[in-house]
Amino acid sequence: MIAELISVGTELLLGQIVNTNARFLSEHLANLGINVYFQTTVGDNSKRLNEALRIAASRADLIITTGGLGPTGDDLTKETLADFLQLPLEVSSSELEKIRLFFQKRGMEWVASNSKQAAFPPGSTILDNEKGTAPGMALSHQGRSYILLPGPPQEMEPMFINYAVPWLKENLIPQGSPILFSHVLKFMGISEAKLETVLQDLFLNQTEPSLALLANTGEIHLRLTARAKDKKEFMLLVEPVMQEIMKRVGNHLVAAGQETLTHSLAQLLKTRSLTLSTAESCTGGMLSSVLTSVPGSSLFYCGSVIAYSNEMKTGLLRVPASVIREHGAVSPEVASAMARGIRELAKSDLGIGITGIAGPGGGSSEKPVGLVYIALSADGFDQASRYLFAGDRETIRLRAVKTAQYLIYKYLKETSP
Amino acid sequence: MIAELISVGTELLLGQIVNTNARFLSEHLANLGINVYFQTTVGDNSKRLNEALRIAASRADLIITTGGLGPTGDDLTKETLADFLQLPLEVSSSELEKIRLFFQKRGMEWVASNSKQAAFPPGSTILDNEKGTAPGMALSHQGRSYILLPGPPQEMEPMFINYAVPWLKENLIPQGSPILFSHVLKFMGISEAKLETVLQDLFLNQTEPSLALLANTGEIHLRLTARAKDKKEFMLLVEPVMQEIMKRVGNHLVAAGQETLTHSLAQLLKTRSLTLSTAESCTGGMLSSVLTSVPGSSLFYCGSVIAYSNEMKTGLLRVPASVIREHGAVSPEVASAMARGIRELAKSDLGIGITGIAGPGGGSSEKPVGLVYIALSADGFDQASRYLFAGDRETIRLRAVKTAQYLIYKYLKETSP
Repeated sequence: MIAELISVGTELLLGQIVNTNARFLSEHLANLGINVYFQTTVGDNSKRLNEALRIAASRADLIITTGGLGPTGDDLTKETLADFLQLPLEVSSSELEKIRLFFQKRGMEWVASNSKQAAFPPGSTILDNEKGTAPGMALSHQGRSYILLPGPPQEMEPMFINYAVPWLKENLIPQGSPILFSHVLKFMGISEAKLETVLQDLFLNQTEPSLALLANTGEIHLRLTARAKDKKEFMLLVEPVMQEIMKRVGNHLVAAGQETLTHSLAQLLKTRSLTLSTAESCTGGMLSSVLTSVPGSSLFYCGSVIAYSNEMKTGLLRVPASVIREHGAVSPEVASAMARGIRELAKSDLGIGITGIAGPGGGSSEKPVGLVYIALSADGFDQASRYLFAGDRETIRLRAVKTAQYLIYKYLKETSP
Repeated sequence: MIAELISVGTELLLGQIVNTNARFLSEHLANLGINVYFQTTVGDNSKRLNEALRIAASRADLIITTGGLGPTGDDLTKETLADFLQLPLEVSSSELEKIRLFFQKRGMEWVASNSKQAAFPPGSTILDNEKGTAPGMALSHQGRSYILLPGPPQEMEPMFINYAVPWLKENLIPQGSPILFSHVLKFMGISEAKLETVLQDLFLNQTEPSLALLANTGEIHLRLTARAKDKKEFMLLVEPVMQEIMKRVGNHLVAAGQETLTHSLAQLLKTRSLTLSTAESCTGGMLSSVLTSVPGSSLFYCGSVIAYSNEMKTGLLRVPASVIREHGAVSPEVASAMARGIRELAKSDLGIGITGIAGPGGGSSEKPVGLVYIALSADGFDQASRYLFAGDRETIRLRAVKTAQYLIYKYLKETSP
């Protein structure tokens, strides 16, 4: 089955928000064995949305829209679909009641325009919105199926998982049909072209699975794709190729599948019962935030001191003021002292210290923007490394956070018992 | 002028990455007065990319693609465009030399497949890639213009700004033509429907500027759009409507334009020469990371203690162990003690304490997932507030971070001298 996504919203065309809905839906559809060949984004404009629906219906079996279901005048998706299919919109009194109740429960004032959210073309299955007022809908009509979802991701995502997926399984997905699966291997410390050269013969002889490469902020992703009846059969199918890849470049692998470098790191720390703490300056808590994004991170992560001021560095982390005076706050000596300081404070097995210049200001010819020192302190180990990251403030911070995790990961791998 | 974006990459259709390129380009094109009516995403598939080019060329003057310019076999964009336009690809020896040099300077091994990156249709303007090996290109052909950019944002963004925009200004944008400008007002503490009702008459009578509403994680954005010859003329044009809006709901405004709540907060703190420090538990450094994303944040931000373990809470932040025992780590008492503790440690004017249950585990009927206490401590002020945020771990953390900033912002507004 082929699906096409239509994201509706002028804010997307003006670049005011990033389209995370298309990513979410594409990923889940792929897992359901539904191919997405095109994603289209269109504004809050009935004529152009109509054109997008027409093109999508000419080349896809299933059309999924996000956005334009709200109460305001420029929410037009249901109206445009009804017009496109030449169907009327009929108010569902039970849905209207639900929306009223939603307002009442939250003590929000009822506004008349909200009632248009309860109108649907006849034959529609109404999809509950657990997080907001605009319900979604699913409808099969003249050989095509249409699913309309709200725009805000926190409303769209649970509606898709809890109501649209069951509707798809009941109405559209034939049981036992082969599904397109994919598995991603994530590498660090090796270039994209180098990886392709080392795996050249595998790329050339690829049929099932097919291989594709993708650079992704400091990581290179290798995607293996094949058709199978279920995930287990797929993993058996890709096993021989995976083994060959691991034999050649396995030492660069940092994560696989849905897992990230952070997950791999968390797993290693938990397995070896080691704890970690961090002292951050230029990354300002970003490393800590990433590490604690993993559920259960309290098992291996003690905490952090974000020492933005020199006073926090000397007072809390006990970096000697003389070291800062002599070498400057951005130096391998200070990074190391921060790593040692937080390790001692938090009584953790490992400590990371990061100090650098994220810019845009604060750089000099001697210490340019992008210069970052990252130190790792562990039992009998104390090392600071120098990096010069390219990019803007956010990119420099992101690369520092990624690299710090890679340093810990490599250290754990190399000291593996 | 009408532009259409085509994002090329199977990884986008599989939902493995978010399309930030479409957002970036749309925003910059809007600022140049170029309308984007459609964005299309298509995989690394020559036939379907050809179809996307055909549709785009039938309804737009300018087609901009991202992705598919790299050295590997599934990088097909230039080849497909050449085929679509029935033009050959010719290797530029000077570009080939540049790519070789790029490899040499970085000590990277040269791989033969890299040379296809130096081939272009005749008549193309080659766009330099300062951050990677794949150059871009711009070409006008039979009344349409085509700009091809690489996929990785860190390569695409500087190429667009430094080379594609000058090309557009020289070749396509007529001087002095009216440009579509927009300005966004950001509100908190008021619902979307309520805002529309309060501004109903302005929405009904809208022509220039036109008004549109958009919910955005805890904020409601109001976009004003109008045509003008420059930004100054536009701001004069929207001034009367803005004044009317401010009169009615100005007390809910937290930021405007490119600014965010974080910028407004930073500005207020700097203007009043106040310093801030934070103590985070469940948000794990996310608040700190957001505050330090603002360049120059060291002027108002002292730092943070991320107290993930109870030991960090009692040892560093001096939260009495008896308070944790009696009320639990997730309680208004602990939040307040954290706020006071960090304020004292960092010697800052304001201190924030956040403790909560981000989930997915760790909740109970008494203290469910999503329960967060946020405390603000200032001179003569000490207050902890209770929140119950919906959503997954990341959403709960994000909402806590947004709310904490709103609390400080409101406090500063209310205590404004």
